[in-house]
Amino acid sequence: MDIEQYMQSVGRAAREASAKVAASSTAARNAALLAARDALDGAREALAEANARDMARGRDNDLDAPLLDRLELTPARIDAMLEGLAQVAALPDPVGSISDMNTMPSGICVGKMRVPLGVIGIIYESRPNVTVEAASLCLKSGNATILRGGSEALSSNCAIAACLAEGLRGAGLPEAAVQVLETADRAAVGQLIAMPEFVDVIVPRGGKGLIERISRDARVPVIKHLDGVCHVYIDEGADLDMALDIAVNAKTHRYGTCNTMETLLVSAAEAAAVLPRLAVAYADAGVELRGCERTRRVLSGVAVASEQDWYEEYLAPVLAVKVVDGLEPAIAHINRYGSHHTDSIVTRDHGRAMRFLREVDSSSVMINASTRFADGFEYGLGAEIGISTDKLHARGPVGLEGLTSQKYVVLGEGQVRS
Amino acid sequence: MDIEQYMQSVGRAAREASAKVAASSTAARNAALLAARDALDGAREALAEANARDMARGRDNDLDAPLLDRLELTPARIDAMLEGLAQVAALPDPVGSISDMNTMPSGICVGKMRVPLGVIGIIYESRPNVTVEAASLCLKSGNATILRGGSEALSSNCAIAACLAEGLRGAGLPEAAVQVLETADRAAVGQLIAMPEFVDVIVPRGGKGLIERISRDARVPVIKHLDGVCHVYIDEGADLDMALDIAVNAKTHRYGTCNTMETLLVSAAEAAAVLPRLAVAYADAGVELRGCERTRRVLSGVAVASEQDWYEEYLAPVLAVKVVDGLEPAIAHINRYGSHHTDSIVTRDHGRAMRFLREVDSSSVMINASTRFADGFEYGLGAEIGISTDKLHARGPVGLEGLTSQKYVVLGEGQVRS
Repeated sequence: MDIEQYMQSVGRAAREASAKVAASSTAARNAALLAARDALDGAREALAEANARDMARGRDNDLDAPLLDRLELTPARIDAMLEGLAQVAALPDPVGSISDMNTMPSGICVGKMRVPLGVIGIIYESRPNVTVEAASLCLKSGNATILRGGSEALSSNCAIAACLAEGLRGAGLPEAAVQVLETADRAAVGQLIAMPEFVDVIVPRGGKGLIERISRDARVPVIKHLDGVCHVYIDEGADLDMALDIAVNAKTHRYGTCNTMETLLVSAAEAAAVLPRLAVAYADAGVELRGCERTRRVLSGVAVASEQDWYEEYLAPVLAVKVVDGLEPAIAHINRYGSHHTDSIVTRDHGRAMRFLREVDSSSVMINASTRFADGFEYGLGAEIGISTDKLHARGPVGLEGLTSQKYVVLGEGQVRS
Repeated sequence: MDIEQYMQSVGRAAREASAKVAASSTAARNAALLAARDALDGAREALAEANARDMARGRDNDLDAPLLDRLELTPARIDAMLEGLAQVAALPDPVGSISDMNTMPSGICVGKMRVPLGVIGIIYESRPNVTVEAASLCLKSGNATILRGGSEALSSNCAIAACLAEGLRGAGLPEAAVQVLETADRAAVGQLIAMPEFVDVIVPRGGKGLIERISRDARVPVIKHLDGVCHVYIDEGADLDMALDIAVNAKTHRYGTCNTMETLLVSAAEAAAVLPRLAVAYADAGVELRGCERTRRVLSGVAVASEQDWYEEYLAPVLAVKVVDGLEPAIAHINRYGSHHTDSIVTRDHGRAMRFLREVDSSSVMINASTRFADGFEYGLGAEIGISTDKLHARGPVGLEGLTSQKYVVLGEGQVRS
C-alpha cells in the first residue's frame, strides 16, 4: 500500500464527508449513533473474534499484562460502549446555536454561530473502546473523524468501524464521516498530522511520549495535555479535617490519572499540626512521601525530595511534600513546577481563595475540592474527549463544545459601508 | 549581539512580566495606557526625529512610495495613536469575568474564568502605529507582548517603545510587559516563533508571504488569515437594487482590504436582469470584469475568467463574475475556491438565507450586507488586532476577548470524589 496515496484519499473523503455531516440534522446524527449501537450489539460475536485475534497477536508479541488488559473487549466493556453511544445521542447538540446577537450602529445584527471544526484526527493507544467514544463525540458535534488506534488493536478497531459505518449508512450519512485507518504502518501517523488541507485538529490520547512526538511534528493544531503535575495547597487557618480529606482523596482515589495530586504544599503555619496526621493517613494507604527540609523537620522518617521531584508526575503511590511560607510562594511553586493542569487550595480565607483562583495559571483551579474532580463528567459536559492544558481554544476537560468553534453571522437588510 | 541569547532573555522577561500583568488591576493597566499616551504626546519631537531617520534610510534603500507612506509618522498619525490609547483604556476589561457557574450533582460549583493568554508575539511590517495598537490591546487584556516590527521602522518603533515603557513604569507595571525587539536581524523572528516556553501565541500582520512563512515555521500557535477571497452571491428573486448596492460597495468601497469582494456569484435566474446594470456601475468605478462563459453570454465585452481567477485575491479594481445554477452550486463554489474569510448572500428567501448561514464555512457569513462590514469596529469589538480565518480559538475579527482564554474554576466546600 502506498501510504501517502492512501492517506490523501482518506483525508479527501473525510473533508467531503465533513461538509455533509456539518449540514446534517441533529436527528440524523442521533439516528446514526443509535443505529451504530444496535449494529455493535448485533455484532458481539464478530467483535469477540476480532478482539481474540488482537489478544493472540499481543501475547505472541509479549505485550505486558496492563496493555493486554486494556486491549481486551469483555462483554461488560461492549455493554459500556453501547451505553456510551446512547448517552452521546441524548446530549444536547451544540451545533447551530447563535449567541450574542446584537444590533450595531450601522443597523446590521452581529452574532456568533456554533459550528463544527471540520475533520478531527484522533491518535490513541491500545483501548479499542476509545474508537467508539471518540467517533461518537466527533459525529455528535458535526465533525468527520479519522481514527488511528494502536496497531495491537487493529482487528478490533476495524470490526468496530464496520458497525459505525452501518450506523451512518442507516441514517443516510456518509460512511467516510468516521474512518479507522486500516494500516499498522507508522508512516500513516506522520501523514495524518501533516495534512492541514484535510485535517483541522489532532487530539492525541496516550502516554507523554506519544503526545510529545505528535506535538513536535504536527503541521495541524493539536489539543493535548502532556503532564498532570497537580497540587493541593493547605493554607494557614484551613479546616484541617477538610484538608486531610481532600489531600488524601486527591492522592489516593486513583494513582494513574492525570488529575491525581503529585505535590502537596503546606503553609508553614499548619505544618506541625497537619503533617503528622497526613503521614498516618498516607502510611495507611501505602503512599511513600518525599519531603523538603522543613517537612522532614516535622516528619523525620521521610525521604528527601530532590529538585526533580517537584516536576514529577509519579502516577504511583508517591507524593512530594513541601512546606511554604504562605500563599505567594505556593502560587509561585505551582506556576513554576506544575503542568498547568489542576490545582486546589484548601482555605477559609476569601481573599486568598480569590487570589489563588486568579493567579494560578492552570486549566482547572479549585477551592476546597479534590483535584480528582477535573473531569468532563464531573464538570457536567456529559462526556470528554480529553483534557487540554493548552491555552488557546480549549482549556481543561474538552466536551462537545470543545469540538466546535464559532463563526460570525451578520443579518442585514441591505446595509453597505459608508 | 548573540541573537539566541538576546531572544531568550527577552522571552524570559516577557514570561515573568506576564504573570504580573495578569494579576494587575484593570485600573493599573488603564493608568499605564493613559500614561503612555501622555508620554507619546510629550515626545512628539523625539518621535519625529526617529521617524525622520527611518524615512531617510528608507529613501537611501529605495523603498517604494507606498512603503514610505506607511512608514511616515505624521502629526495626524501621532494624534490617532493617542486617541487609540484612550479608546483602548475606555474599553471594558475582559479579564476575570466568571461565566456559566453551575452546581454539579457532587455539590461543587463549576464555572469558567476569562484569563489572559500570557505572552503574545506580534510580527508586522512597516506601519509604526501598529506598535501602539498591538501593545495596547495586549496590555489591556492582561498579556505581555513582544513586538517585532519591520526593520525599516526600527528607530520609530524604539522611540514609541520608550514612551510605552514610561507609561508602564508610571503605573507600577513591569516594563518588560511590552518589549520591542531592538534588532533588525531576521534570525530574531525565527527565534520568536520557536520559543513555546516563553511565547503563547504569534499574531503576524502583513503580506501573505510573511504570514505563510511564519505559519510554516512556527512552533507556537499562530492566529492569522492568509487570504481574503470574499464572495457576494445574488440569489434568485433578490431585491436587485439592494444587490446592486451591496455588490458595488463590497467591491469598490476599498480595493486593498481583506474583506473586499473578489468574486461575484449570480443566480442564473437573475443574470440577464442584473448583470447589465452591474456592468454599468463597475465600468463607472473603473472595475475590470472577468467572467465565466455564461456571464459573457450576457456581457459580451467581458474578458474570460480562468480557473485561477476563482482563487485570486486581486486587491485591485478587478472582479471575477460567475453565473451559477442556484444556492447549492454557489455554496460549493465558495467553500472550494474561497478563503473562509467573509461571504454574503443577497436574498429574500428565508430558507436559503439560513442554509447559506449554516453551510458556508467562513469566519463571517452575511445576509443582505456588504462584506466590508467584517471588521472589529463594525462588529462592536471596540478594536481589532487582526482577522482570523483559522478554525480553532478565534474566527473572524479578533478583539480583546480573542487575546484571552477561559480556565475552569471550581468552588467547593470540602468535596472529594467517591
